[in-house]
Amino acid sequence: MKPVIAITMGDPAGVGPEIILKALSSKKIRRLCRPVVLGDEKLLYRIAERLNLSLPPKGGIINLSTLDIGRLKPGQPTKETASAMLAYIKEAARMAKKGGCDAVVTAPINKKAAQMAGFRFPGHTEFLAHLTDAKDFSMMLAGKTLKVILVTIHEPIKKIPKLITEEKVFRTIKMTDESFKKYFGVKKPAIAVCGLNPHAGEGGLFGEEEKNIITPAIKRARRAGIDARGPLPPDTVFFRAVKRKDFDCVVCMYHDQGLIPLKLLHFEDGVNITLGLPIIRTSVDHGTAYDIAWKGIASPKSMIAAIEMAVEMARNKVRVK
Amino acid sequence: MKPVIAITMGDPAGVGPEIILKALSSKKIRRLCRPVVLGDEKLLYRIAERLNLSLPPKGGIINLSTLDIGRLKPGQPTKETASAMLAYIKEAARMAKKGGCDAVVTAPINKKAAQMAGFRFPGHTEFLAHLTDAKDFSMMLAGKTLKVILVTIHEPIKKIPKLITEEKVFRTIKMTDESFKKYFGVKKPAIAVCGLNPHAGEGGLFGEEEKNIITPAIKRARRAGIDARGPLPPDTVFFRAVKRKDFDCVVCMYHDQGLIPLKLLHFEDGVNITLGLPIIRTSVDHGTAYDIAWKGIASPKSMIAAIEMAVEMARNKVRVK
Repeated sequence: MKPVIAITMGDPAGVGPEIILKALSSKKIRRLCRPVVLGDEKLLYRIAERLNLSLPPKGGIINLSTLDIGRLKPGQPTKETASAMLAYIKEAARMAKKGGCDAVVTAPINKKAAQMAGFRFPGHTEFLAHLTDAKDFSMMLAGKTLKVILVTIHEPIKKIPKLITEEKVFRTIKMTDESFKKYFGVKKPAIAVCGLNPHAGEGGLFGEEEKNIITPAIKRARRAGIDARGPLPPDTVFFRAVKRKDFDCVVCMYHDQGLIPLKLLHFEDGVNITLGLPIIRTSVDHGTAYDIAWKGIASPKSMIAAIEMAVEMARNKVRVK
Repeated sequence: MKPVIAITMGDPAGVGPEIILKALSSKKIRRLCRPVVLGDEKLLYRIAERLNLSLPPKGGIINLSTLDIGRLKPGQPTKETASAMLAYIKEAARMAKKGGCDAVVTAPINKKAAQMAGFRFPGHTEFLAHLTDAKDFSMMLAGKTLKVILVTIHEPIKKIPKLITEEKVFRTIKMTDESFKKYFGVKKPAIAVCGLNPHAGEGGLFGEEEKNIITPAIKRARRAGIDARGPLPPDTVFFRAVKRKDFDCVVCMYHDQGLIPLKLLHFEDGVNITLGLPIIRTSVDHGTAYDIAWKGIASPKSMIAAIEMAVEMARNKVRVK
């Protein structure tokens, strides 16, 4: 049986509609799953026509808004488009919680646009966590050759040392372990844990966080039966993960520690996965790209990869049960 | 005319002697340059015999120490080996300053070992800067596909925000521009400058250093006619430099920002280049590797790359003049 994948259309004024249409015109995607787009039917028809793209299969759209297509312009979000894109997400969360779909894949939203509709969350992920009553979550970025999990996300470098606590590092490792078992079919995932500082602190010479925070968290994880390793020097751990296959994934202390290697290897086909939610949720790893919206030039690679990843996770979840 | 490359033997108890012998047995290296090893003749002979490696060409060794070979053991530095390795570096600096060689390539030393001989510098590079009366220098790490220059080197993450000053960022950009013109034959190098924070601060949302420090430094560089660009989001700049060839090099704010992508792409063949010295100096980008010293298993790739880079720089320097 094919998994049902709910795909939110994202910001109507962004690249969401077209990357979804492009992704769904892929035979491989249609063979893999039953996609259902939560969005605006008229807008999808209009963009399909404009860019000469095929439409989703029958029954493949759940219409959740009636945008004033005549007035709508690419790159120009309105209060109306903002409300609509939030409605798509709410419905996706509801469907997933009730078992109406096997996974949710989200197209990008724009935070400033969302605020026009009274959105008060730090981001897309926090909103989904709220909608699904999740207390704790982590962001994983994944490509075929590398998977990284972030302990902190959008924080200034200055704040990182204070934000990294033993509890937070431990919880991230634990969530990673559980997710790899549940969604990726790895019985005992080998989890590399990065140091914060150059050479992972070089025995305290270049920093203390490894000794005081990261090592205790790793020890706690190991006592809990998790194969966590480190703290490892950040400048060599990715080579080891990618070329030597020493680890299944790498837990990173801050955004660029994980995103620099990930985007170097998977600039176009990286997938954003939220760990810790009661539902499966993947997402493209790019933004609304207002500047190129509705022009037919946006690459659907990340959307395709996000759908494929959601399918893989849904299949593994069933298999592991 | 072939450039004369002075190669310091590094720590006698480390992998230096064998990676030099292996590198010099390469026909390509012999064809490219006239190598002169500054080291211990007896030890080089002994290791060549032991590992069945060929000896450097006649006149290819300048003997600067008479180590007690019978007692010397791999991985076990002594006060004697420490003094010897410092003597090789001193002589290399002297030779280069007097024009006795065109470039210096250094094999690794161990700082703790060096301290046995009264060494009081933070590292190899600072020692060379002292010996050549250089006031200011920067570390560049280079592979064939990527070159990164570090504004700060071996510092804890916690200290980075305070260590990055407009003056320091500007000087690093300027030194990079001068070096690329002088040593790499690039008329107007395109220099990418990284932000410090995720998304280069996202307009102040994720940090202020871009606005207050890095942008002013870039503006100053541009006023001086330098093609400096940024501050750029650290997570996408390396993809752009490597895959799209948008830039000649990337100026990085901290160690792992530059070393993570560099080592991912050039784990074995990365070269360490010191910019700002009055001499050309390249180095392997690994340590003494005591645990595998004299066993014949150390890879000479980084040493070969360091010699090739020194040759390229020496040739360009002559051409540009």
